Amino acid sequence: MLNSSGKHKDIFLGIDGGGTKCKAIVVSADDQILGTGISGPGNPLHGFEQATNSIVESAQFALKDAGLANTPLSEVVVGIGLAGVNLPVLFEQMSAWQHPFKEMYLATDLLIACLGAHQGKEGAVMITGTGSCGFSYVDAKSTIVGAHGFPHGDKGSGAWFGLQAAKQVLLALDGLIEETAMSKQLLKLLAVDNDVALVEAIAGKPATYYAKLANLVFDAAENGDVIARDIVNEGSEYINSVARKLSHQKPPRMSMIGGLSPRIQPWLASDVQAMLSPPLSTPEMGAVLFAKQQIALT
Amino acid sequence: MLNSSGKHKDIFLGIDGGGTKCKAIVVSADDQILGTGISGPGNPLHGFEQATNSIVESAQFALKDAGLANTPLSEVVVGIGLAGVNLPVLFEQMSAWQHPFKEMYLATDLLIACLGAHQGKEGAVMITGTGSCGFSYVDAKSTIVGAHGFPHGDKGSGAWFGLQAAKQVLLALDGLIEETAMSKQLLKLLAVDNDVALVEAIAGKPATYYAKLANLVFDAAENGDVIARDIVNEGSEYINSVARKLSHQKPPRMSMIGGLSPRIQPWLASDVQAMLSPPLSTPEMGAVLFAKQQIALT
Repeated sequence: MLNSSGKHKDIFLGIDGGGTKCKAIVVSADDQILGTGISGPGNPLHGFEQATNSIVESAQFALKDAGLANTPLSEVVVGIGLAGVNLPVLFEQMSAWQHPFKEMYLATDLLIACLGAHQGKEGAVMITGTGSCGFSYVDAKSTIVGAHGFPHGDKGSGAWFGLQAAKQVLLALDGLIEETAMSKQLLKLLAVDNDVALVEAIAGKPATYYAKLANLVFDAAENGDVIARDIVNEGSEYINSVARKLSHQKPPRMSMIGGLSPRIQPWLASDVQAMLSPPLSTPEMGAVLFAKQQIALT
Repeated sequence: MLNSSGKHKDIFLGIDGGGTKCKAIVVSADDQILGTGISGPGNPLHGFEQATNSIVESAQFALKDAGLANTPLSEVVVGIGLAGVNLPVLFEQMSAWQHPFKEMYLATDLLIACLGAHQGKEGAVMITGTGSCGFSYVDAKSTIVGAHGFPHGDKGSGAWFGLQAAKQVLLALDGLIEETAMSKQLLKLLAVDNDVALVEAIAGKPATYYAKLANLVFDAAENGDVIARDIVNEGSEYINSVARKLSHQKPPRMSMIGGLSPRIQPWLASDVQAMLSPPLSTPEMGAVLFAKQQIALT
């Protein structure tokens, strides 16, 4: 392991700034992970100051974890992937940041996730966590499918599964559709026992709240609940269509990533399952690989 | 017409406090409308102070419109229907209001709408405007179907039609479904020309925003747009199920009210259309009739 008096120019920071947390790694010249750090929300969509604070904090945590607490950020190159920087206004705002690093290379969260999944090579990813989207990077060209947000987009995401379940439970409580086991399980999870209380619990809640209900829907579907199965089939059919759309770009590899992926993957169509390979590393590592590629280009 | 020195005890105020506006009427002893007034949001769900201010203001406007500007509110009985007062906490808060009227009789927005539609008699209503719900008042018992809010409920409402359309347009822009004429019409209405701009326009918008897109969906459906027709059929099928559910209560009459009713009604199933009779008067008149019924009971 390097120590604080060591060769700082040989280490790199990789940061994935997401909507709920910011994850950082510090790696050696040969991409060995020396330390990791996690801080709060790092997505500039929800505020520039909070995002930049989280980025700096996660970097410091990772350096400390690597035994490099005394290394100045001004001596370390960083690759950062952030949601939202596909919007020109946010890319400019983040690029204009008087950051404390030696150099900063900025990419979208989607690109670093894709580079991470394919060890820096081209390919495609389908991401299903709180949100959902598809992304391919082929012939140095990015293609995004979805990534529209909640509730108008993000079909097949954790938030979408949770909202669909809540809708069906409300219909069941109104006696408009059959009540299944999933209804009782959802009411129990939210500690409510009628429609008015359920509405009070869910009204105005963000995507992250609904996403917490997604595992319940998959549990119910796997136990044969017909309402849950219809929801899971509809969400999976959307993910199938995203994968088939991305396959038109002829990505050398395709992976599924995100917290909900292990639940959805078994429900996908066999032609889609056959397209998928396991992700090789994390988005944070993808951020490191992105920074190194940018340096090599200059 | 009465004048400001006339018999104040013979006039009544009826008020319908909705989420976007508060509508008041002043009527004579024999229910002739003497004046009307409109002010801002009157729904205590969105704030007690704004709601009570709007209620007082709409009442003063109605009195002024009737040539009764000098009549003190303390000499007039009022019936008020408000969304949200089915929740005990809001009913208590509004009941505890140090209101300026001679007497105040408080009911839900649903009950005054139903009483208005059936000239004070029992019956059922299906309400489709920005939101949606079904309500019956039979044997002095209220039954509510829906009324859960957006985006988790309110299927078949203006907001629901608008959101469904936006979702389908995003799928079309991603190339996941066929693009139809409705896509171009919606993009034109919102003055955007790509998915990122569309998401910027709609993200985080309230139900009232989405409801403004509903007429476009019906226009497209009536012109044979297959995507729009699927949306309208799904929403109408939900309204059918609400009507059939309410019919189990055996309401003497059933009406459809709300701004979107004229658009939806032609799409309903023939058995449901056969259940419907035109509304006889407004929710504000229902509020007057409610106040008079309460006085008669005491």
